[in-house]
Parts: sequence; C-alpha cells; structure tokens
Amino acid sequence: MNTCMFDQITIIGMGLLGGSIGIGCLQKGLAKKIVAVVRRKSAVDEVMEKKAAHEVTLDIHDAVRRAGLVIFAVPISAIAPLAKTIADDIAAGCIVTDVASVKGSVVADMETILGQRCRVVGSHPMAGSEKSGIATADPAILTGNVCVITPTENTDEKASKQVAQLWETLCMNVRYLSPKQHDENVALISHLPHAAAFALMNAINHNSHNPHEVIDLAGPGFRDVTRIAASSPELWTEICLANKAAVLRAVKTYRQELKSLVEALEKENADDLCRVFAEAKKLKDASNEDISREDTKPQRK
Amino acid sequence: MNTCMFDQITIIGMGLLGGSIGIGCLQKGLAKKIVAVVRRKSAVDEVMEKKAAHEVTLDIHDAVRRAGLVIFAVPISAIAPLAKTIADDIAAGCIVTDVASVKGSVVADMETILGQRCRVVGSHPMAGSEKSGIATADPAILTGNVCVITPTENTDEKASKQVAQLWETLCMNVRYLSPKQHDENVALISHLPHAAAFALMNAINHNSHNPHEVIDLAGPGFRDVTRIAASSPELWTEICLANKAAVLRAVKTYRQELKSLVEALEKENADDLCRVFAEAKKLKDASNEDISREDTKPQRK
Repeated sequence: MNTCMFDQITIIGMGLLGGSIGIGCLQKGLAKKIVAVVRRKSAVDEVMEKKAAHEVTLDIHDAVRRAGLVIFAVPISAIAPLAKTIADDIAAGCIVTDVASVKGSVVADMETILGQRCRVVGSHPMAGSEKSGIATADPAILTGNVCVITPTENTDEKASKQVAQLWETLCMNVRYLSPKQHDENVALISHLPHAAAFALMNAINHNSHNPHEVIDLAGPGFRDVTRIAASSPELWTEICLANKAAVLRAVKTYRQELKSLVEALEKENADDLCRVFAEAKKLKDASNEDISREDTKPQRK
Repeated sequence: MNTCMFDQITIIGMGLLGGSIGIGCLQKGLAKKIVAVVRRKSAVDEVMEKKAAHEVTLDIHDAVRRAGLVIFAVPISAIAPLAKTIADDIAAGCIVTDVASVKGSVVADMETILGQRCRVVGSHPMAGSEKSGIATADPAILTGNVCVITPTENTDEKASKQVAQLWETLCMNVRYLSPKQHDENVALISHLPHAAAFALMNAINHNSHNPHEVIDLAGPGFRDVTRIAASSPELWTEICLANKAAVLRAVKTYRQELKSLVEALEKENADDLCRVFAEAKKLKDASNEDISREDTKPQRK
C-alpha cells in the first residue's frame, strides 16, 4: 500500500504528542512534506534532530497555506486562538484535526472557526506519558493504543476516513464516539485516574511527617498507581476545566466508592469489603482478557 | 561469601511469595535443605517442578522440627493458628519470621505464641503482584524492592541480623521500622493505593452503562493505575481489617484530597487546581529521583 496520503501535513505544536506523530508520519512516508510549527527558535534544531519533520518554522501562517492536513498538537486553551490565527491562511478543503483530551468544546470551537473553509475532524489519540516535550517523543507511544475520532453532524465522511487511516498507519486502533460520549468515557478512563493519582500523592504528603521515608518503602504497585502523578499540572488543569461536568461526576462517584469501603471497614464487615474488592477485580480481569484478545488479533499491514 | 546460612529453612505456604522465596533460597544456596509445607497434595508436584524447595510435605509438625529458620508465607489470618499448631514441634532457638503486610498484630501474636521458645523477627518483603499462586512465583519479584524488618523490645539482635542477611541475599533492600510505624507507612504506600485502585474500577462500573466499552479506550496510564485492582479480594480484605485504624485514616485523608479537587473544579479555580496537581507532581518527581539514586548505588556482592 502506498501510504503517502498528503502532499503536506502541518503539525502545530511539537511536544511529546506532536513530536511523536511527526516522527511516525515521516517514518511511514505519510506525506511528501511534513512541516512542524514551533513557538521557540531553540526548538527548531530539536525537531530536526529528532527527525520529526522535514521543515520547521515559527511562521504559522505560511506553514498551513499548502497543507492538506493540519494537526493541532497544542494545549487545549491554545487551539481556538491558533485556529483564529490561521483562519485566513489555511487552504480551502484542508482537513483539520487535533489531539486534545477533551472533544466537546474543542471540536465545537474548531468547527465554528474553521468549519466553513475546512473539514474539521476531532481526534484523541489515547497515548501520552507523564513525560512531556519533544525530547521524549517516540511514535511507539501510539502503537496499540486507541485513537477516538469524534464525528459530528458537520463532519465530512471522506475526511473522517482519511484521518482514521492516518492513525491506523501510526498503529493506533480507531474508535468512533460523539464528542459528548467521548468526554463522558474519557473522564472515567483517563481524567479520573489522573485525579486519583495526584490525590494519592497529596494524601501521603499530608498524612505523614516524612513522606520521603514513607515512599522509600514503595513497591512496584505504588510506583504504577502513581506514575501519572508526574504529569504536567498545567495540562491537567486545562483538561479538568474543559471537561468539568463529566470529571466532577466521575470524581464524586469515586469518592462515593471510597466511602462504601470506609463504611465496610468501620463496621469490620469482611463480606462487604470482600464484595467491593471482588467486584473491582472482576471488571479488571475482564478488561485484561479484552486486552489479551486484542493482542492476538492479526495486525493490520 | 558462603551464603549457606542454615542447615534447614522451612517455608510454610507456597503461594506467590512463599514460592518466590523458596526458589531464591534454593538458587542462592541459603540452606542445605529447604522444606516447603503445603496444604493441598496436588501442590507437592507444582512446588518440586518450580524448584522452590528440596522437599515438600503436608506434615507441618515434622517440617519444622529440624528447621533453623521458619518462614510463615500464609495469609494473615492463618499465622496465629499455624503458630499454635507448631508451638510444641519447633526447635528451641529457631528463628521465626513471616511475610505479612501488617505487622502490629502479627508480630504480637507470633511473640505471644512462639516467643518463649523461638526468636521471632517480623518481616515484610514489599513485593508481590496482582497475580497469586506458585505458578507465577519468581524470585525476581523481590529484587530491588524494600523488605521491612520490624524489631520490638523482645527481638533478638542476632536473629534480626540473620533475617536481614537472608533478604539482602535475595537482593532486597532492608529497612527497620517498629511494627506500628510500619503499619502506618504501609497503609499509605500500599494499602491505600490498593483501595484506590479497587474503588476506581467500581467507579467506572457504577458510572457507565457499558463499562467494557469505556475501558476499551484505556491507554497505558489507566492500565498502570488499575493493575493492582486484579489482586486477591480475600487477601486485601484481611489486610485492611488487620490494619483497620491506619487504613481508615489513609482512605479518609484521600477522600479529603479528592474533595479539595472537587471544590477547586466546581469553582473553576484554575490556580487552586494547578497547585493541587503541582504539589503531587513535586513529591512524585522527588520520589522518582530517589529511586534513580538507589539504582546507581553500587550493588551488594
């Protein structure tokens, strides 16, 4: 299969995700030319050294003029302002997608600002890491993970298929959800776990005179549960605010689950406690089985 | 160094931990004879096939008679009854240790039952896995992790040193804490994270019509946070009950941290939210640095 899908792909933002996508697109030959837009002059050499683009520029206007696909890989709050910045430069019919963790407001903004001139398709590659920046970029973070595409009534079907093909070529498993359903599900599966991990570190901090001595004991379980507590506070503040209603629902349900646990423990009710843990284990085991099945599926060439 | 420390080590219980310790002791030649005690006849072949002992028996009385070291590697609730069972069989002066995740009540019980005749030393190797059973036993689960030894005013210093040497030969990093301090710290670093992971699965279960569809989206962050939710419900019920006061304190603090997060989000207070996340990240980053430093320490020969 000839994977060269576009004459030019422009990626705006060269952090962990933008960089990883750039490297992946370049390696797979997904476009004749991959252009990266960065804010800092010092980032130009970093991007070239990582082979994350053919060209790097600080001129966002020029970067999008000849692009067949533009990917926003910037923080959520930067998407709408940057969309306005390029609204007069971008080629008519250009496909515009993004990588934001929240889709409702982001897709609505992109459609409002660019929808007349371009074909907007919301994407959320469920990949990333507690690390950030181009230095840690690696297309392997995408491999085998889900990318959610969030079509709306305004979405061009052909554009949606091309975006899906892009993520699939980068070895991601594409799913389709409405922006609203995406935001609900991802609040539970991603935003809540991050909140839980952050809160866990703070509980240790506030419940111990010497948190470092406590953490010194930690085994692999603790390290895994709290790995994502090293994620960017600014990024996660933006995500929680952008998905406020669903995140609040998720965290409140979570507090309720912990309350059930507290109550069973206070009553020394072994049966209730064991039932609570067994219910959790059942769902976790089932999800592990789902993953094993996924792993044994024949790989797309 | 001649690592043969004992003529005979008897390990009571051949689950994940007992099995891993048995394999490790045998590989390192820590005793001339390693005897494993199992409950099920069908386990005898499994233990021999895993090379986790030189001899396997169902006769706990005979198994401890000539042992210089007895290791309880059974669930918390089984330790006191089994200690009573062997109280008349065990050799005078024998060192007795265990692997329980809770030390206050366990060490007190062992001292009460066996302390007149033997030298009791509480141990907690902070290793394990969401998996269980001899089939998954592997001494590598011990390597590089902490083992807490919990001396009391009754502890024989020489016995404590020998137990420390055992764990160090199995590549663990030994720390010393009183049983009470151990239970406080481990409630935060191990029992709370398990409770948090179990509750997270239940929050998804109870907040979604199709939890499998939600989990299908999950990236590596979710998988890491929830890995230990596949742990044994029975084991964790016992642990929480045995460390009730400290676990309750930890889970209640955790709920309070989550409440701070909810309040900041409800007020859309980005500064507060970012401060909460940044505080967590600061402690997590510092603990990652501690681990890196530990990794670069010269290894004990």
